[in-house]
This record gives sequence, structure tokens and C-alpha cells, in this order.
Amino acid sequence: MQDIIKVAVDAMGGDNAPGEIVKGAVDAVATRNDIKVLLVGQQDIVTEELEKYTYPKWQIEVVNADEVIETAEPPVMAIRRKKNSSIVVGMNMVKHMEADAFVSAGSSGAILVGGQVIVGRIKGVERPPLAPLIPTENGVSLLIDCGANVDARASHLLQFAKMGSVYMEHVVGIKNPRVAIVNIGAEEEKGNALVKETFPLLKECKDINFVGSIEAREIPHGEADVIVCEAFVGNVILKLYEGLSSTLIAAIKQGMMSSLKSKLGAALALPSLKKTLKAFDASGYGGAPLLGLNGLVVKTHGSAKANEVKNSIIQCVTFKEQDINGKISEKIAETE
Amino acid sequence: MQDIIKVAVDAMGGDNAPGEIVKGAVDAVATRNDIKVLLVGQQDIVTEELEKYTYPKWQIEVVNADEVIETAEPPVMAIRRKKNSSIVVGMNMVKHMEADAFVSAGSSGAILVGGQVIVGRIKGVERPPLAPLIPTENGVSLLIDCGANVDARASHLLQFAKMGSVYMEHVVGIKNPRVAIVNIGAEEEKGNALVKETFPLLKECKDINFVGSIEAREIPHGEADVIVCEAFVGNVILKLYEGLSSTLIAAIKQGMMSSLKSKLGAALALPSLKKTLKAFDASGYGGAPLLGLNGLVVKTHGSAKANEVKNSIIQCVTFKEQDINGKISEKIAETE
Repeated sequence: MQDIIKVAVDAMGGDNAPGEIVKGAVDAVATRNDIKVLLVGQQDIVTEELEKYTYPKWQIEVVNADEVIETAEPPVMAIRRKKNSSIVVGMNMVKHMEADAFVSAGSSGAILVGGQVIVGRIKGVERPPLAPLIPTENGVSLLIDCGANVDARASHLLQFAKMGSVYMEHVVGIKNPRVAIVNIGAEEEKGNALVKETFPLLKECKDINFVGSIEAREIPHGEADVIVCEAFVGNVILKLYEGLSSTLIAAIKQGMMSSLKSKLGAALALPSLKKTLKAFDASGYGGAPLLGLNGLVVKTHGSAKANEVKNSIIQCVTFKEQDINGKISEKIAETE
Repeated sequence: MQDIIKVAVDAMGGDNAPGEIVKGAVDAVATRNDIKVLLVGQQDIVTEELEKYTYPKWQIEVVNADEVIETAEPPVMAIRRKKNSSIVVGMNMVKHMEADAFVSAGSSGAILVGGQVIVGRIKGVERPPLAPLIPTENGVSLLIDCGANVDARASHLLQFAKMGSVYMEHVVGIKNPRVAIVNIGAEEEKGNALVKETFPLLKECKDINFVGSIEAREIPHGEADVIVCEAFVGNVILKLYEGLSSTLIAAIKQGMMSSLKSKLGAALALPSLKKTLKAFDASGYGGAPLLGLNGLVVKTHGSAKANEVKNSIIQCVTFKEQDINGKISEKIAETE
């Protein structure tokens, strides 16, 4: 008999909850029959939304959680006080092994705090990094850490490199992934204090394929598979990636609408243009896993629509099947 | 009688020296008759290049400098030892007021070190920031600091905000420019240690128009005129901007060449597309000034071509005419 992966999904989190979240869950179970989705949220609202669809009843269950953590709430307080919020309930299900994974488009802060406090870290992991996939000319790269641990230390970055390597090799399927550290020049002596301290640790580490520094300019060219950086820098890279892509795309579209001739051109070129732009749409790759926890927690964009929710749920299957946490645990233990 | 602005130009610096540099100088003097360019470099080579062109002889002079500082050389050592390099000779001309400004596409490190050591800082300025203009949906923003001072302190960032405000108001012509600090969230309590320390200083500063935090996602939308950040982060933003723009543009072009139909569309839409893309081409805005020095030093891209060199030379005129250094000096002194 096939193993069923149980994914708890925060039905109340994000700008488009519960509509797009519920739709994403329905789409996910329509794609695969080895998933069970546990929609965590205010029962009446979620059930009403769910009743719009037809789906195999055994594959989706609603789990009640009366409270909702808002994005603006201070995360530590929210996790401590709102015991019956969708985030706390969902994470507790992972902790008690009633779910293999938890997916949320809700408050990043609350998800990061909840991941550490409720789900807990794998033994030996100092800080759990948030690690989204970003599109490049050649496919995708893993950006690690992307907002979980500002002011991190060199030892944390070394662990990020190891965890990221496991993820890229076994979830994304890139053999011997190239690891690089974000720097402001290619030479070894360049960088700020943190990078200068981390560089030799990465260089000496036997169980990763370290290729040196990467300048931000080279990131979109796909020059590395695992891109290691401190969370503040990672967050800036991720958000600039999103902002600049959407700005450029909008400017190009607008520019093409400026004359009749170019309008006609745009109409002819549109299908190929769409294909190109889709490759640079981060939502197609699902959410960002929070690595190094005793269970899987995936953060999707606050603006996630059904497609991203669906992809985030499906992503959990590979994570579980490949026993990523077991592999991370081994890799971290090797150098303890 | 009109004042003549004297601009020393490093004829040996950058990937396209001396050809594109000399061409840029010739183009600059063809545009304006209130500029004199002093081309600093190996006399024979520069003169040979210059002889290809016709130009008003009094507007371009070659100043001999036998040595060249290579990009890979450790900057402090290079500035100290190569006394007769184009960078050291050019900067000494600014120091001794034989030139109003120095423009170079050479080694960033050597230019930053030389600026501090040879040209020297304006009294009260703690660290001179490198401040390029970056394109946005609405025009341009000033990104300050962009590589000069990694691991800067909060007091440095406050000065960057003031110097950047002077530049945007009086060189770019934006009244009461909006100042924002790069952060990983919009809320005041977000950020790393440096941002948390700097935020209240900016908020309390009376002589800037501080509008709060800016997430990297909003930078291309032009949500602020002066974007304050630590040099490592600024360098990442600048280089990702360049890398991602060129990657996206290349991908779009390639995508459009994929079928006959889209090729035809591309041909029709090309003029408007080019116009849009040109607005996002950083080289159109000239080089990045190193602010807070006793004289003007402008760093252009290592890959700068004649157009960027020309724009960088012309940029020096407004800088001098508007007495930016006098204004910076006043603004820094106000809070000393």
C-alpha cells in the first residue's frame, strides 16, 4: 500500500485566504492521490468555501482553528497567546505527527517563530533557514537564508550550506550542487566581516561542493545551485528579484502598447513572451521550506494564489519521500 | 566670462580603455564648450587614440602617467606604490585644484582608497559613500552606499542620508527628496541590528525628508529618491539590478526569436521595446560619485563605453556649478 502524505494547510493565511488556499488544496488532491490535505481554519468559513468544489472526500479534511494571526502582530506574542490560531494548530499537528508538513501563506514572522518554538529544531541545527527557490537562466537556485535569522554567525551559514545542498540534491535533483557565498567581489579577500569569517569554513568543508564567492550580478545567470547568505541580504535579493521582474515586465508590456505597430507586434509575440516570463515567475516553484525543523514547514508568498498553494502542497511529497530531514540530520551530525 | 570645468579622466581604466574613454572625452567636448578634459594615461597610447578624432584642441589635453593600476591589485598597496599611475596622478590633480573632478572606470578599490587618502574627506564626513543612480519606473533613485564602506555604523548611514539628499535635490533636481532605509519589512521594529540603530537617527533628523523603511521589492517602483543602506547590501542591490535586467532582456529577446510568428512580432515591437529597455540601462545616467570628498571623484562601470564616459564627464559640470561640496559641508556641520 502506498504511503499517504498528510499536509496541514493554513486556510486563513495570506492575502487571498480562504478562497485561493482552498482552491489550491482541491487542485492538489486532483493531481495526486497520495496526499491528504488538512485545511486548518475557521470551520464554517472553510467548509463553505470547500463546498463549491467536487473532490475525493477522504483527501480533504477541515480542522477547526478559531483564531487568526494577522501579519502586523508581533510574532512571538502572537504564537504565545493565540493557541487556537491556524498557525499554532497546524504546527502542533506537525509536532504531534498528525501531519507530515504545514503550508502557510500567513505572517512570516509567526511562521518562523512557530517553527522554532512549536515544531522545534533537528538536533544539532543552530538556526533554521528559510530557503526559497529562485528562477535563473538555467533553472532554479536555492537562496538560503532568506529572512529567518538576521545577524547570523559564520557557523550558521556553514550549516545553511549543508542543508541547502541536501535540498538541492534530493528534492530538486541536482547532483553535487555548487555552493557559493554572496559577496561583493570574486576575490577571496573581499567582503564584510561575516563573509570573511565564513569563506574559509565553507572552503574547508568536505561534504559540500563549494565554488567560492558569487556576485549578485551572476545570480540570475545560474552560476551556483545553493546561494548562501545572511538573512537580511537574502531577503533583499528575493524581494528585489520579485520587484524588478514585475517592474520590467510591466514596463515592456506598457511600452508595447504605445503604438499601433508595436501593439500588433506584441500580439504576435505574446505566446513566446508569456512562456519566457513564466519561467521567471517565482510562484511556479511553490513555497520556501523552513529547513532544519523536526517536520516540514513551508512558507508561501502572502499573495499566493491557488497554483502556488497547489505546488507547495505537492512539494511536501518529495521532501517526505526523500527523507530530507533524516539526511540533514546526518550531514549536520558529521561535523558536530 | 564663462567658468570652465576641468575634468581629469582616467584614460587607462576599465575594460574598454583607452579607446572608449578617449571617444567619450571627444563626445563630451563636442556637446559642451564649458568643459576641458585632461586625459590621464600613457602619453603615446592616448595621443595615438586621440589623433583619430577632430575636436577643439584647447578642450582636451593629455597628461602623462606611465603606470596603470590593474583591477586585481590590492588597492591600498597599489595607491601607495604606483605614484605615477593614472589614478594617483588624476587624483592628485583634484587635490591640487588643477582639476575639479576625476572620472575613472578603473579599479573600484583603488578609486575608493585613493579618494580617501589622496583627495581627502570634507571636514566632518566620517566615510565617503559611493552613490550610483539606479533606474526606476518613475525616473531614478540614488543608492547610497554602494560598495565603499562595508560594516558601516549608524552614524555613517545618517551622513549618507544627508549627502544623498543634497545630491538628489541639487544635481538631479528633485525637491525635498524622500529618504528611505533598506529594510526587510515596513514596520519600524523590523530589521537587523544596524537598521534598528539607524532608524531612530533618521527619524529624528530634521534636515532630511525621511519616509521610513523600504523593502527591496519597492525599489524599482521608485518609492524613494534616496535609498540608504550599508555598502554590502547596496552592492548586492546594484549588481542584482544589472544582472537581472540583462538576463530578463536577453531571455525576452531569445523567446521572441523562437518562432516565425513571434519573430515578426518582435520586429514590429522592437522600437518601443528598445525605448523601454533603454530607460532601464544604468549606463545612461553616467557614473557613481564618491560623495563627501574635497573634490569630485566619479566611478563609472568597468565596462563603460563612450556614452557612459561622456555622461559622467558632463555630470561633473552640475556638481561643480551647484557647489554640491559646499552644501554637503554645511549639512554635515549642522549636526556636528
